[in-house]
Amino acid sequence: MTLTMRPATRAELPAIVALLWDDETARHREDPREPLDPRYLAAFDAIAADPNQILVAAERDGRLVGTMQLSFLPGLSFRGAWRMQIEAVRIARDVRGQRLGEQMIRWAVDQARARDCKLIQLTSTATRTAAHRFYARLGFVQSHVGMKLHLRD
Amino acid sequence: MTLTMRPATRAELPAIVALLWDDETARHREDPREPLDPRYLAAFDAIAADPNQILVAAERDGRLVGTMQLSFLPGLSFRGAWRMQIEAVRIARDVRGQRLGEQMIRWAVDQARARDCKLIQLTSTATRTAAHRFYARLGFVQSHVGMKLHLRD
Repeated sequence: MTLTMRPATRAELPAIVALLWDDETARHREDPREPLDPRYLAAFDAIAADPNQILVAAERDGRLVGTMQLSFLPGLSFRGAWRMQIEAVRIARDVRGQRLGEQMIRWAVDQARARDCKLIQLTSTATRTAAHRFYARLGFVQSHVGMKLHLRD
Repeated sequence: MTLTMRPATRAELPAIVALLWDDETARHREDPREPLDPRYLAAFDAIAADPNQILVAAERDGRLVGTMQLSFLPGLSFRGAWRMQIEAVRIARDVRGQRLGEQMIRWAVDQARARDCKLIQLTSTATRTAAHRFYARLGFVQSHVGMKLHLRD
């Protein structure tokens, strides 16, 4: 069964929010109930309208089994290099451990190369050590610390 | 002497690249010689054309003394929250230690609030421990690890 990556549709948004929610770190901050919080729809529209953002749906056998957001960021560093940033990676709970995440990240790498990005960056919650090992196996180097300032609840 | 933050102009690009270059971590990867590598100009134009990107010039007494790049990123996480990302922060070597960086970051926080961002995020090279302490003093929490995959030299 092949895994297919493509931009998510608006109709898939409830399923994608459910994937984001089904996670020990994110559960308290997401709300998958339908009708969805309209802020999710506004965010989807902002992403879809921006050619430098892709909300990815990973589909297998007609079912949405994964998601991630890819951002293409212009910058002066590295002599004006573009970079890709990966956020909000999720795999459906019942299909974890089947290397679908690896296929998703390899597809993301292909997209980054196709747009001539010099590097791909991501941050991962410090306690997600299994995720750090996963990305390290794919060649990512843990060279930075990630810091956040929350402005509101 | 007041520090003023505003979008950088294209004419300031050589001075900004010189700031990026004058840094122990970045020196080997930037080239401040004029005429500038045209990739810097292309990057400037990509940033200037995108309403979600700001290349900031910090000016004091008619002189460019600092720079940073602010990115406004839409996303589904946190119920569709926008976030600000800060990259490529630099202060001119001879004016470091005067709390100009603090003024720049506080200005960035104001911009993030004005655009209703829920959080601000940044990564910092793991060895820049003084920078980590600086951001911690401003309220940033080191909750994540930052990983990079370089695709080409």
